[in-house]
Amino acid sequence: MNYYSAPIESLIEAFAKLPGVGKKTAQRLAFHVLDMQEQEVEKLSEAIITAKRSIRYCKFCTNITDQEVCSICSDAHRDASIICVTEDPRDVVAMEKTKEYKGLYHVLHGAISPLEGIGPEEIKIKELLTRVQQGEAKEIILATNPNIEGEATAMYISKLIKPMGIRVSRIAHGIPVGGDLEYIDEVTLSKAMEGRREV
Amino acid sequence: MNYYSAPIESLIEAFAKLPGVGKKTAQRLAFHVLDMQEQEVEKLSEAIITAKRSIRYCKFCTNITDQEVCSICSDAHRDASIICVTEDPRDVVAMEKTKEYKGLYHVLHGAISPLEGIGPEEIKIKELLTRVQQGEAKEIILATNPNIEGEATAMYISKLIKPMGIRVSRIAHGIPVGGDLEYIDEVTLSKAMEGRREV
Repeated sequence: MNYYSAPIESLIEAFAKLPGVGKKTAQRLAFHVLDMQEQEVEKLSEAIITAKRSIRYCKFCTNITDQEVCSICSDAHRDASIICVTEDPRDVVAMEKTKEYKGLYHVLHGAISPLEGIGPEEIKIKELLTRVQQGEAKEIILATNPNIEGEATAMYISKLIKPMGIRVSRIAHGIPVGGDLEYIDEVTLSKAMEGRREV
Repeated sequence: MNYYSAPIESLIEAFAKLPGVGKKTAQRLAFHVLDMQEQEVEKLSEAIITAKRSIRYCKFCTNITDQEVCSICSDAHRDASIICVTEDPRDVVAMEKTKEYKGLYHVLHGAISPLEGIGPEEIKIKELLTRVQQGEAKEIILATNPNIEGEATAMYISKLIKPMGIRVSRIAHGIPVGGDLEYIDEVTLSKAMEGRREV
């Protein structure tokens, strides 16, 4: 039985589908929305749909962007001879926060994980290979997460790219194994970039 | 500096304004939205604005509803001679879940709290008095929260309504003092309703 009127039930249901939001939290969020200024509510509602509709993948690095080419790929000051490969757009942000890396990126949107049925075709490896074949890249830095899936993905990519005569490196294990790249502090991440070794 | 493109930054900002949502959680929610089906995202976006726009106060009990009169007030099977007074619409839902109370409600939307500058005029006490004067109510059950503000509000209302010759009762202190009515289990709440005493 529904105890709230239909629009509130729908809102509670919609909130409860978000990650980490249970029934009680969804209720709290819904009632907060009812208490908010209508203008603020419109902003929230529009931000959600605008983000979803305007975001696409950069045609070079497959990072998320609202342009055809992302702000990093279209920045002439960046060093196009180095490409740092990450699993996730959030990892790019973590890397950018170190303020030390001046090359470009390539976002895989996942890692190879046979257990979850994610093979090399499910992530953006093909796009990386095409880009390396056509482009001016001299070094590929593999910055996938330091866990089994990330290591497997790094190995897989290095085996494909090394025969092309391009330097392939892996960020150093200064970062704690089993961790998540997104949450690592800037200093550790800088150290990991410095200590990268050829594979 | 913004590391994400504008639509994502706006979305993260909008999420971060919700209660209990910090920067990291807001990011996680934003990226979840990007991963969702467009149809699901539209649903969420519309649920938010629809709930805000369609919800108003029932003209009798001031509970939230999307009709002029809420489903409880318009239910002919409910006993119109008893009115249970609560602070919040969520308390009405908690009470309804006991499935034992068959009377009507009155939602105050708050409690008297001099510290927060909330006096009797800021909550729906006037509406309750008008309703009691004009209506067929024979008993008023005060089900405000068992804390200082709730007790003060109950006392204030009972002093106004008792002189009208109407029975005024307070839900029993079977419910733990200092707790929040919304989170109390059904059995305890039933006991509290049974053991109510005249004030």
